[in-house]
Amino acid sequence: MLITHLVGERFKEKPADATFKSHEFLVRGGYIRQLGSGIYSFLPLGHKIMQKIGNIIREEMNAIGGQECLFPYAMPKEVWEESGRYHTIGEELVRFKDRKDSGMLLGMTHEEPVVHGVRSENDNYKRYPFMVYQIQSKFRDEMRPRAGLLRVREFTMKDAYSFHTSQECLEKHYEEQRQAYVNVYNRCGIKKLVMVEADGGVMGDSVSHEFMSVNDAGEDTLSICPGCKKGYNKEVLEIKKMDMERCACGSFYEEKRGVEIGNIFQLGTKYSKSMSMTYLDENGNRQIPVMGCYGIGLGRILACVVEESADQFGPIWPLSIAPYAVHICLISAKADIKKAADKLYAGLKKKGIDVIYDNRAVSAGFAFGDADLIGAPVRVIFGEKAFASGECELVTRDKKIKKVVKVSDIQKETLALLQVLK
Amino acid sequence: MLITHLVGERFKEKPADATFKSHEFLVRGGYIRQLGSGIYSFLPLGHKIMQKIGNIIREEMNAIGGQECLFPYAMPKEVWEESGRYHTIGEELVRFKDRKDSGMLLGMTHEEPVVHGVRSENDNYKRYPFMVYQIQSKFRDEMRPRAGLLRVREFTMKDAYSFHTSQECLEKHYEEQRQAYVNVYNRCGIKKLVMVEADGGVMGDSVSHEFMSVNDAGEDTLSICPGCKKGYNKEVLEIKKMDMERCACGSFYEEKRGVEIGNIFQLGTKYSKSMSMTYLDENGNRQIPVMGCYGIGLGRILACVVEESADQFGPIWPLSIAPYAVHICLISAKADIKKAADKLYAGLKKKGIDVIYDNRAVSAGFAFGDADLIGAPVRVIFGEKAFASGECELVTRDKKIKKVVKVSDIQKETLALLQVLK
Repeated sequence: MLITHLVGERFKEKPADATFKSHEFLVRGGYIRQLGSGIYSFLPLGHKIMQKIGNIIREEMNAIGGQECLFPYAMPKEVWEESGRYHTIGEELVRFKDRKDSGMLLGMTHEEPVVHGVRSENDNYKRYPFMVYQIQSKFRDEMRPRAGLLRVREFTMKDAYSFHTSQECLEKHYEEQRQAYVNVYNRCGIKKLVMVEADGGVMGDSVSHEFMSVNDAGEDTLSICPGCKKGYNKEVLEIKKMDMERCACGSFYEEKRGVEIGNIFQLGTKYSKSMSMTYLDENGNRQIPVMGCYGIGLGRILACVVEESADQFGPIWPLSIAPYAVHICLISAKADIKKAADKLYAGLKKKGIDVIYDNRAVSAGFAFGDADLIGAPVRVIFGEKAFASGECELVTRDKKIKKVVKVSDIQKETLALLQVLK
Repeated sequence: MLITHLVGERFKEKPADATFKSHEFLVRGGYIRQLGSGIYSFLPLGHKIMQKIGNIIREEMNAIGGQECLFPYAMPKEVWEESGRYHTIGEELVRFKDRKDSGMLLGMTHEEPVVHGVRSENDNYKRYPFMVYQIQSKFRDEMRPRAGLLRVREFTMKDAYSFHTSQECLEKHYEEQRQAYVNVYNRCGIKKLVMVEADGGVMGDSVSHEFMSVNDAGEDTLSICPGCKKGYNKEVLEIKKMDMERCACGSFYEEKRGVEIGNIFQLGTKYSKSMSMTYLDENGNRQIPVMGCYGIGLGRILACVVEESADQFGPIWPLSIAPYAVHICLISAKADIKKAADKLYAGLKKKGIDVIYDNRAVSAGFAFGDADLIGAPVRVIFGEKAFASGECELVTRDKKIKKVVKVSDIQKETLALLQVLK
């Protein structure tokens, strides 16, 4: 991609409403644009990251037997009346009338349409357990959207639903999901991860855990025990009337801020029972399946990676989700230097590397400012001084590696550095 | 995938409301399930096909310079008031109020949010032309949803928008899009394709064309000239007060039924002007860009492939979008036969082939009925009679190729057949 072709301007001024790094850099770097309160358009840079996060999630879900589906985002209210939630959930659930005056709603979580979609399928214990998931945009009418992608109304979510013939089977799968979630966050570059016990909330009273990225942009206060490493959402300690100061092991909690980037629930039979889902057991009797559900917010992961990993100039993307792996900066208008940079660009593209090329021959300061905002893990700089001795520079976005490399070796060295960063 | 693990039942009875093949087979095969009027859940089989169609579209859009984005599906009404369409479009546009009583709507086409999202980007003639696209679920509140996926309310669409500094540039890109569309349909297995001149409809008065799959499930009547091969939507001939019987070349039109599976529009400045999008030209003056827009319905392609290519037993998928490339049928409970089938299944999976394995050892009739509904292009049958002579059967879904193959050669022969079908 030529930087001049990329759709999305970068700019220097911090947006007035941006309190947090992720909000500031995602807007300044041309990743996202606000369309309304808590509603964002994803420009190419932002969308590329979302796709990479989505594909990591797909791999981890498929690895534990997940089957990808797509359920509707708009649906008749009758589906939610079956579970009772149509009436119990507040204004965050968008309700509307269609042209025939029938009640409709926008899905903000998908237990009801999923149970509706699969309750007549796999009607035999031999075909259990099974797990379906989707990656989809949902709408939750938050009272107070805030901080860019950290609290939005329209959001992209991976939501998975598992169906079991026993609580033991559910618990086994719950553990597989927990491990898959840890894998997803590790691979996406979330380093400060804590799993905390959670309150079931709108899902019903059930065993559930939240995955939190520990960073200052978080709205949740976490109580983390330095002794046994257990963590709680402070709100949950209060709701459950537990000791707010000390853990059962005796240590005093440390308080941290965190952003919820995923949650897993053992739902039991709440939805399968209310929505009359059954299967035939080995004795030919009808039984109600036990369910789990498992959510990840893709936009929150994206924002939290920036909160955890950025400097004052912009995001520092891990290679796994970086919109571009390599950023080539041409800091000269001389034809022979441009020729060398052009050659590297063509060579890397041919090798299938995601590469962005700034061939505008602008000043180093201007080019580096843009490169910092785009945040590619590897940067190659073609400047006049180094080129005079047949060299160019190879640096990582985090500035930890800086090398002067022969122009003739630059492609090989760039590919080698990418291997190191994998 | 083991057939017993796949989420989605197959059944024999034709659904009462299914008039057309695509509707019947997609429901009977476990591809889709209806959630409401014109609203469908995609089970794994259906979703896999949609993803394959989506990836073909991505490749063709990227090849002509497209940059993938994601724009919101729910948005404030103010964005549509800028173009004036908030008031001019009828009840097919879903309008609702959010919790703060602000007017909102569900996108059914995305000119407004796209212009909103990019109008401050690439603000210089040097960064033109550019084209963005997305693959997204939209909602259009059709009065009369019908025929499964052929006319729905919630639908997955690829919509692209191009921005140009001149009409000539737009026309050049329009031709690139036209060719990309032909490529998409060819690659997806649409064989009976006609491009017809269309009325701009809700997009405004502009040059536009529709791509039609010619099949009996179509609602549109097409007037196709057997002489010059030009085609028209009959409705358009009427609107434009053109001769309904004879083409300008003198030949009488032939009438056919068609399903619209895509459309392309030269929009001009209708949206850029009303929404105040400008760029700086080479003299430093503000100019209004010229736009085009280009839509493809993914679910309609899926349905039309079935309408065009099926027998009385089920769909005949082309390899490019088939949910599974190979279907292995084990028609025996004998351990040595199962061992051979297991080995092929493991071997093909290792080679990265999308393979489904029916290891239930049910009767041939039952297994073939399921295989016909799943429609994998290649089937391998392990039965007792052939196995007694060290053989198994390799057949294509369309029954045009039937071979008896040595069990020891079956993996090699299967891979070779897949190469032929590519």
